[in-house]
Order: sequence, then C-alpha cells, then structure tokens
Amino acid sequence: MIRVGVDWGSSTFRAYHFDENANIIDSLTRPLGIKQVNSNSDTSTQFEDILFTEVGSWLQSGDSVLLSGMITSANGWHETEYLECPADIAAIGNHLGKTLCRGVQLLFVPGICQRSPYADVMRGEELQLLGTSSTTDAELVVMPGTHSKWASMDHGTIQSFRTIPTGELYQILLHNSLIGQLATPNDWLHEHFIAGLELGHKTNRIISELFSCRANVLMKQLPEEGVRSYLSGLLIGAEINEGRILQPSSTIKLIGDDMLCDRYQTAIEHLGLTVSARIIDASVQGFSRLITDIKQR
Amino acid sequence: MIRVGVDWGSSTFRAYHFDENANIIDSLTRPLGIKQVNSNSDTSTQFEDILFTEVGSWLQSGDSVLLSGMITSANGWHETEYLECPADIAAIGNHLGKTLCRGVQLLFVPGICQRSPYADVMRGEELQLLGTSSTTDAELVVMPGTHSKWASMDHGTIQSFRTIPTGELYQILLHNSLIGQLATPNDWLHEHFIAGLELGHKTNRIISELFSCRANVLMKQLPEEGVRSYLSGLLIGAEINEGRILQPSSTIKLIGDDMLCDRYQTAIEHLGLTVSARIIDASVQGFSRLITDIKQR
Repeated sequence: MIRVGVDWGSSTFRAYHFDENANIIDSLTRPLGIKQVNSNSDTSTQFEDILFTEVGSWLQSGDSVLLSGMITSANGWHETEYLECPADIAAIGNHLGKTLCRGVQLLFVPGICQRSPYADVMRGEELQLLGTSSTTDAELVVMPGTHSKWASMDHGTIQSFRTIPTGELYQILLHNSLIGQLATPNDWLHEHFIAGLELGHKTNRIISELFSCRANVLMKQLPEEGVRSYLSGLLIGAEINEGRILQPSSTIKLIGDDMLCDRYQTAIEHLGLTVSARIIDASVQGFSRLITDIKQR
Repeated sequence: MIRVGVDWGSSTFRAYHFDENANIIDSLTRPLGIKQVNSNSDTSTQFEDILFTEVGSWLQSGDSVLLSGMITSANGWHETEYLECPADIAAIGNHLGKTLCRGVQLLFVPGICQRSPYADVMRGEELQLLGTSSTTDAELVVMPGTHSKWASMDHGTIQSFRTIPTGELYQILLHNSLIGQLATPNDWLHEHFIAGLELGHKTNRIISELFSCRANVLMKQLPEEGVRSYLSGLLIGAEINEGRILQPSSTIKLIGDDMLCDRYQTAIEHLGLTVSARIIDASVQGFSRLITDIKQR
C-alpha cells in the first residue's frame, strides 16, 4: 500500500505518513531540498539515503511512496514527463514514473506544462490543485511564493497557468540592488504596503516604478522604514494585475502558508476582490486524494 | 578661470581639462567613484586627496573646478540642491554649490528633481542634457545605463523625466536569480534579443515574462546560449515602452557609450522608431557649455 507522500522541493523535504484510509498520521519537514544535494557525487544514492533515513521507519517491503516536486525534474532523482495544458488534474495518477528501490516502489508524480500562448511549467503545485480544486466550478487559484503560480481551473481541468516570480524579484531587489540599499531591516509599515499595492496594481510601467522605491526616499516621500513594505506592495499589486488576466473572476482561492496568505489576502481585499478560500495543507490533501484514487482502481 | 570639469559618479571619476576657450585638451578616467571611498573615515579628506592627486597638475591657485554627478549627493562631498521640473537646463549655472579648497574654487552642479506625478532625481545627466539639447525643438532623450534616464525636453527645458533601472535589473537577474542560472557566459544571439525585445515591448505583464527566460529553456523553446540576449531584449523592450509614455515622439536621441547605444539603436529601429542622433561625449559638451555660459556673465 501507499504509506508515504513526499513533497520534495528545491529547498525543503516534506514527508507525510498516511494510514490505510489515506488519513495523515505523521509528518516531518527537513531542510534537505534537492539544491542541498551535492551534484559532484552520485545524487541518486544521496536521494535514496535521505529518503530511507527520514521515512524508512514508516515503510515495509512492498509499500509505495509518492514523490512530487522538483525531485521529479531533470535535476532530481527521476525525471517525469509533463502533462500538457489544458490538463485534467485527476489524470496525474495515470502518469506516474515508477522505480523500485530497497523493495519499495517509488511513484513520481508528473509535472504540468503549457506550450502556448507561452511556455510555463509546474512541479508540485499540480498536487496541491488536485487536493483542493472544485470539480464543479471555474476557479482562479493562487499559490504565492518565490515563484507564485496562478492557475485558471475549470471543472477540475487546469485551463492555463502562469508563474510570476514575485517573491524572487522582491528578495533580489532587497538584497542585491541599489534600490534595496535604503531599506531598513524587518520594518513593516502597512500604509506603505498599501501605497505600493495601489500603484503596482494600476501601473503599466512596473520597471520604472521599481525606482520609485529609491526616488521617493530621496525626495522624502517615503521613510526608509517603509521601503520594504512599499516594494512588497508594488510587486504584489503588479502580480495580481498580471495574474488576473488568466481569468476575469473577482474571487481568488489562496493556497499557501499563513504569513504569505495573510499578505495576499490583505492585498486582494484592498483591491476590492474576494478571497473564496484559504488552504494551508494542500499537498497533504493532494497526496490523500491521489492515494484514494489509485486504491479505487 | 575654470580649467577642469569632473564627472564623479558612483563607480568612476572622469576629469576633463579645458583651455581658455572651453575646448578640451586632456582627460582621464579612474575607478575612483564615490562608492570606492571608505565611509568609515573622513570622506571630505579622501575626496580632496583624489581630486588633487589626479588633476592637481592641471590647476593653479585661483582656478575653478566644476564637479557633477553623485559627488553632489548626500553621500558625496558637497550636497547641492535640486532644480525642480519643469527645469530650464541653462539655469543650472545659477545654482552652483561653492566652496574653497587649497586655493581652488570648487563649483558643484545641482541635480534635477521631479515631485509630481512621481518622484524622480538625476545627478550628472543634467549636464549631458545641457551640452546636447536643442533649444529650439521638443526632443525625447535616452541615456541608457544601470539606471537609464529618459527625458522629455522642450526648447531647452526638462519637462519631465524618468529613471528606469533596466541595467541594474538585468545584472541582478543574471547574477542573483534562478532565472539567470541557465544563462551561459558571454553568449549573444541576435535572434533571441529580437524575440525578447518584441515580447517586452508589447507585454503589459513584464514580471510574468521574466519567468519565460527559464520556462522557455525548460520547454526547449530557447537555447541556454540565448538566455542573456533574450533577457536583455525583454527588458529593453519594456523600457522603451515605458519611457515613450513621457513623449509621443517616434524619434529618440541617444546619449551614451557605443556598445550600449548600439544595442538600444538596434532595438529602437527594430520597433519602427528612429534614432535622431547619438552622442558619446555629452558630459564634455556640458562642461564646455557651462564654462562658456559662466564666462559670458
């Protein structure tokens, strides 16, 4: 039986232990993402060691493990194919990459790709969509993060999606640019987040507006303590503007951790839109759904 | 008399030696920008040492030196006021910051600021505009660089301007982001520059399109050797789109070094616009004009 699901990303290894009814009974998180694996030696052996060190005690011979995320990429353990958009999310269970390891069957979840009108890819988020998407409605779903994913869903099919690298842009602007040099550490000022948000949402000149983080300080229109919040607002405002082009819906479903979803919910609601739901444990729900689907076949 | 003009920026110290007719007779460039000066000790003394070490032999007691660029900022030697937009560029000679040093008069050129509809600042580029702008026409002028400046000029007045941090964004994305990790060193492929340019110019979703640098490679729609050119095209296309909002002119004047102006000219002409002129030594022309203006008073 399938006892374990692993969401193995670039930075983090997250494992979930399920019972025979696909209910979660244990979980663990380790800073052992695929980026941390030394690519100068045999990465397969390293991935195997990590997996059995962390979750070996949950497994018996003949069991299966589901693996999802960047572990299924070209830099991972076992590269899986992509399902192409529009993609029936329930079909991912039919396209698992399979391999045996120490008497345990490893089942690698495929990613989703889009070729037109632009190229895009996801690995890991498809499982979150599987666990949480309505099979009866159209939905606009956002998974905020380093590389936010926006997905336009319709009756359980991913119609189209877009990666918007807002989180990464925020971090590198704060830490590597002259623009971020004026920002003070850790300060958060709500009013400047809102000012940035409104500007980022309405502008069609976001590269120019990035410089406003600096120019506004020099012109004493923004305190240095507000730079971080203002930049965050500016980028999230632009992201919401860009992401909503996928679907005209004014309600948005949020998937992610509490801190980031709080910030996005504040932004979405300030712009007069609605958050239809917030989901934290979408990967767990996705594994559980996939285990149930496979068992019923 | 005024014998020397110094364009003293963040990274570079450039000095020009003029004769009594304001013609250039010598010049030098040193990697001694204000960023290189150690802010833990007395920066004034360091600036003074650099100036007299580099150009002391050009000066006699009673001479004057013009200084422009970041040396006139709060982090520089002598902070000058800003002239506010719309600003008559010929008026900068009336607002020089003055101080005496080793028997030589130092004349610091003011920067230009804009308060509305958005805050923006320039220090150094105003001198380039003084040296090169038409006093009889409207012009759209671009000074490409780390922080590109776009200026809408009308009969010698800076009507409005905008800083677009294209060059900085390009560098930090290439060197600090996951997006740039796929780029190979130094490759340049014209066709991918053009593909990025066309997309960057027409899109209103530039943050999303940044991720296309990566997604296109993963989906085998862009070779790794083309990432650098594609990203450059994407950002310059967006910059031209954003900058032209200042003035509907379809002709653009370029000020800057040959390599960068080549790239911008290629982009501008590919988009069906016209380059009205290209000017390399705009700072020299600016100092020369300012020296002549001051002498005639």
